Amino acid sequence: MDRLTIIKVGGKVVEEPESLNALLDQFRKISGNKLLVHGGGRTATEIAKRLGIETKMVDGRRITDADMLEVVTMVYGGLVNKKIVAGLQARDMNAVGLTGADLGLIKAHKRPVQDVDYGFVGDVDDVNARELRMLIEENVIPVVAPLTHDARGQLLNTNADTIASELAIELSNYFKVYLFYCFEKRGVLTDPNDESSVIYDLDYKLFDQYKTEGVISEGMIPKLDNGFRAKAKGVQEILITNPENIATGRGTRLT
Amino acid sequence: MDRLTIIKVGGKVVEEPESLNALLDQFRKISGNKLLVHGGGRTATEIAKRLGIETKMVDGRRITDADMLEVVTMVYGGLVNKKIVAGLQARDMNAVGLTGADLGLIKAHKRPVQDVDYGFVGDVDDVNARELRMLIEENVIPVVAPLTHDARGQLLNTNADTIASELAIELSNYFKVYLFYCFEKRGVLTDPNDESSVIYDLDYKLFDQYKTEGVISEGMIPKLDNGFRAKAKGVQEILITNPENIATGRGTRLT
Repeated sequence: MDRLTIIKVGGKVVEEPESLNALLDQFRKISGNKLLVHGGGRTATEIAKRLGIETKMVDGRRITDADMLEVVTMVYGGLVNKKIVAGLQARDMNAVGLTGADLGLIKAHKRPVQDVDYGFVGDVDDVNARELRMLIEENVIPVVAPLTHDARGQLLNTNADTIASELAIELSNYFKVYLFYCFEKRGVLTDPNDESSVIYDLDYKLFDQYKTEGVISEGMIPKLDNGFRAKAKGVQEILITNPENIATGRGTRLT
Repeated sequence: MDRLTIIKVGGKVVEEPESLNALLDQFRKISGNKLLVHGGGRTATEIAKRLGIETKMVDGRRITDADMLEVVTMVYGGLVNKKIVAGLQARDMNAVGLTGADLGLIKAHKRPVQDVDYGFVGDVDDVNARELRMLIEENVIPVVAPLTHDARGQLLNTNADTIASELAIELSNYFKVYLFYCFEKRGVLTDPNDESSVIYDLDYKLFDQYKTEGVISEGMIPKLDNGFRAKAKGVQEILITNPENIATGRGTRLT
């Protein structure tokens, strides 16, 4: 099977021109098939504010009412996505920007209201990779925004880490998939203030222990849960790293 | 050659849920391959206003400074495009939303400043239909937003009528292309207040005469210029009509 590298990048990295350019330069160095999944939360929050729409978060997750859905559709599907696509085209990478609605890529259902009403947030049901595979095999680089649809016309806001792992799992049927979660730090750290405290190999037992001990904390937990799930479902390799190391492959490897 | 119908829809039609739904229902009835090009100017103007960005128009064309470019990228490439895509998916049509940057589809250059500085407005240089054709042949329905890129990382705002005719011309090398410009009226009218005054067959000589006499006025002139150019370059049929008649094929036919 051919190799496919899936890079998930969130946070400031894709939202500031300088760091985005640095990321795209690194991304270019990755050989073989590749796919990028991005976030855009900071820009969404800023645009929402300018439109007079209040951002509400619960446990780091965005409450997405109808107004906020319009904002994330504009920002993730339009502004952030197309800037990345244009930046890749400028580097001779033939990118195509997609949401989960495009090509029927990711079907989801609106999250049922339990303790919290997240609004138009989607939990993934199904990935249709048919046309996506075809594009990847034609050397096209998909750039995927964190939006899904319910196949009845409703767009939904979906966590980008989840989008990345669901795509990685489905595409593992056709490619040897390397999934890199890319953020500000060099990897999972035992001391968040010490960049040299990277855990290079992390297995589920150690993850569980670090969780119990509080060494690995909030934001990183769902990311690693996603990662271990992908690993269990046939994804070749999962790496947590920063933009500088996506080409070198250094960082925290899930084992 | 297979048939391909290209529908260009602008104005309110795609920007209000009811008329959009009606349009998509009609669009579904068209048999064979199809492609949709949309506008979104009213929404762009409204979002710009809410963001405190002033809309400036010259001869019906939007002046696109850096702030306005962000707005149209969000609105055309994100909000309007993804609503249409989700609406088509809900009707079992496998749509993919694209701008001219995606798949390197439409390369343009920034319009040189002459009498007017239009800002980040692009004039089309080149259409790359390679991957687009492949998608169409896989029964995918491209939904194209009126944005292009300069292949050096700059997105540009480009007139949707022009996008439609440029795509129609290029795709005429591979398909028998039917290009429909869809707007509020039943066709080109000799009396703008009388919907029964549709000119059913319009050749260039008659167009020229009506222009001189002032029967055909401002907004319609560049649309028809685009249409006659497409006709001269091998597009099978060009029709000016309203959403109700895209399936029946009634309206003004350029001959």
